[in-house]
Formats: sequence, C-alpha cells, structure tokens
Amino acid sequence: MKISARNTIKGTVKKIIPGVVNTEVTLEIAPGVEVTSVITKSSAEKLHLSLNKEAYIVIKATDVMVAVD
Amino acid sequence: MKISARNTIKGTVKKIIPGVVNTEVTLEIAPGVEVTSVITKSSAEKLHLSLNKEAYIVIKATDVMVAVD
Amino acid sequence: MKISARNTIKGTVKKIIPGVVNTEVTLEIAPGVEVTSVITKSSAEKLHLSLNKEAYIVIKATDVMVAVD
Amino acid sequence: MKISARNTIKGTVKKIIPGVVNTEVTLEIAPGVEVTSVITKSSAEKLHLSLNKEAYIVIKATDVMVAVD
Amino acid sequence: MKISARNTIKGTVKKIIPGVVNTEVTLEIAPGVEVTSVITKSSAEKLHLSLNKEAYIVIKATDVMVAVD
Amino acid sequence: MKISARNTIKGTVKKIIPGVVNTEVTLEIAPGVEVTSVITKSSAEKLHLSLNKEAYIVIKATDVMVAVD
Repeated sequence: MKISARNTIKGTVKKIIPGVVNTEVTLEIAPGVEVTSVITKSSAEKLHLSLNKEAYIVIKATDVMVAVD
Repeated sequence: MKISARNTIKGTVKKIIPGVVNTEVTLEIAPGVEVTSVITKSSAEKLHLSLNKEAYIVIKATDVMVAVD
Repeated sequence: MKISARNTIKGTVKKIIPGVVNTEVTLEIAPGVEVTSVITKSSAEKLHLSLNKEAYIVIKATDVMVAVD
Repeated sequence: MKISARNTIKGTVKKIIPGVVNTEVTLEIAPGVEVTSVITKSSAEKLHLSLNKEAYIVIKATDVMVAVD
Repeated sequence: MKISARNTIKGTVKKIIPGVVNTEVTLEIAPGVEVTSVITKSSAEKLHLSLNKEAYIVIKATDVMVAVD
Repeated sequence: MKISARNTIKGTVKKIIPGVVNTEVTLEIAPGVEVTSVITKSSAEKLHLSLNKEAYIVIKATDVMVAVD
C-alpha cells in the first residue's frame, strides 16, 4: 500500500511502553536519532512490534513543525 | 522555550516551495534522511528559513505513525 | 506495509481539486457517503490518483472526533 | 453549531473502551464499515455515549490520508 | 451538535486570507489574544465567515502542546 | 527556539490529571478562558508543570477548527 503521508523513514524499535488505551514506541532512525510515537495499544499489537525489530515511522507533512534557534 | 512535543531533531533546510497560504519545507536530518513539512507561509517567513540553513523539525508523538513491512 | 493508523477504508475517487501546495481529494466510501482529504500536491501525483479509481482513506484514531445531536 | 471540519458522518456506537485519560470509541458508519476514535475520557462522558446509540464522526480534511494498492 | 473536541472558545473574526485550497482565518478570543486557523476554502465559504462576525475556535486536546520558558 | 506553530498563548496551569501514557493539562489563558491539552506523561514531567505555574499553549493553525452558531 502506497500512502499520501510524505514521510516514511526506516528505523529500529528501541522502547515500548504500553498503557491502557495507548502505547508509546521509540524508534532509532539514524545513529543517535530517536523518534517517539504514541499509537493505540491495539495498533501496537496488530503490528507485532518488538525490541530491535525493524519498523518505519510515517508522518504527514502538515504534522511536521519547523523551528530555528 | 521548552515544548511538550516529544520529537525535536536538528537538520539542514534542503528545499522550500512557497504556495499562497502554505509553504513546503524539506530538511535533511541525517545523511540521506529527509523530512518534508508543510507550514503556513507566514510562519516560514517569520523563521527566515533559507537553503542550507540549520533548523529543527518538531513532531508530537501522537502524530507519528508506525508501520511494518 | 501495515500501518498503525486504525482506520483504513476502501473507496472510489470522486473529485480532485489541485492547489499550489495542496490537493483536495474526495472519495466515496459507501453509497452516498463521501470523505474529503487534503494532501500535498506531490503526494497526490505520486499516488497517480484519478477519477473513479479505487483508493483508501487512512485515518488515525486520535484524529477522529465524535459528536452527538 | 456548524464546524469547519469537512467530514461529518452519522453512525452507531459499537464499542467503548475506557482508559485513564482516553477512551476508545468505535462507530459503524455504513454496513460493515467501522471507524475507531480515541477521545479524552471526559469528552466521552460529556457526550453520554452508549452502545447502539446514534452519533457522528467528525474528521478534518487534513487528517485524512489517501492510499492506493 | 455537541462534539468531543475539548476546547470551544468564542471569538470575533479579525482577518481572512483566502488561498486556492485553504483559507487562513484569525479570531480574537480575548482582548489582545488572537488565534489563527487554516481551514479548507470551501469550509470557510460554508460557514459564511466575515470580518467582525462572531465565531468559535474548536481544538482537540491532543492538538494542544504545552511549553515553558 | 522559534517554532512554526502559529499560535503561542501564555497562561497559568489550573489542572493536571496524569494517566499511564498521557497527562491532561488545563491552562487558563484569559480570565475565564481555559484550554485543555493532552500530552505524553514524560513530556509533562520534562516541563516540570505544576499548579498555578506560568506556561504556554502552542497550537498549529491547521489544528484549529472554526465553527459558527
């Protein structure tokens, strides 16, 4: 499936913190660069995520803010 | 200012495409890893973004989806 | 690719309105039920969307609000 | 109240899973077509949602992604 | 219609900038406090927004970030 | 840090409800005007939020909907 979200980046699952409704997942997408995601718990289970497994982060362009010092 | 958005990643501005209301900005955040953002045109101007300038992408954890092959 | 977004619904492209940065796309997902999307123009082109073509809408659970009369 | 969110679709509440801060609500919006939402628990309570009750899903156009096979 | 979005605040329309697909709308919600919104152009037209007219901003709790100095 | 999110409004923390993954934070941004936010628990802790402390809400223009009566 090809999706309209502009950003798809490959990474490795580094941390999984399950809550009641949501689960927090952290991926390393480049050496020393981590991205944290909060998805529903049932999505996390559906994807069979586990530590050190390969996965992707997917982000819509309108959800990316830009900042400068 | 310290913000609740979980993900702040430093990068370099690689492309700027201005529209009427919105502007599309692409940053390289690691060698070969680019992230594209759509922000309002007036925000882009307020930040004085220009090619090859350093900037950050800022993304809330709930805006990051996870995918697997 | 399997994605964490909870909602994936098949439909048919019914309308495409291109802007400068964004494109508006409307799909019919059930008889008489239409959903309108605004995606970046380059995403729309990458997906080769055209009228009456099959496509999916994908929506994160946190982006769905609920209302009552 | 008339809202700028482009998509308002009537449905029936099929599942409610309450968490500590958030609640997951699933509506059927057409025969066999379900949409899942995560809203704050206090919003769910304010709306007096209950199984088989009529309700609406409301989604902004920029929160709808499009995908193709 | 009662909606799950947690934040509904009354204000006055102070600025409208129409684009091709999107329109930027600024409301004053308290003396000196303005909030800017980008909605689709057709939504702006559907709401018959005009300068100095009363309107509401509606924001989901998950779309509100918090920052400190 | 200057961010592309269009809306930054100063307020005072009035309520904090911690969950397992997320925390709900309410700020008063003008007399009688409150805005509620849901952020990850670790973000809330990182910001050292506490009752009656000054803080800001930060909201992207595309996350602000507009409504009329």
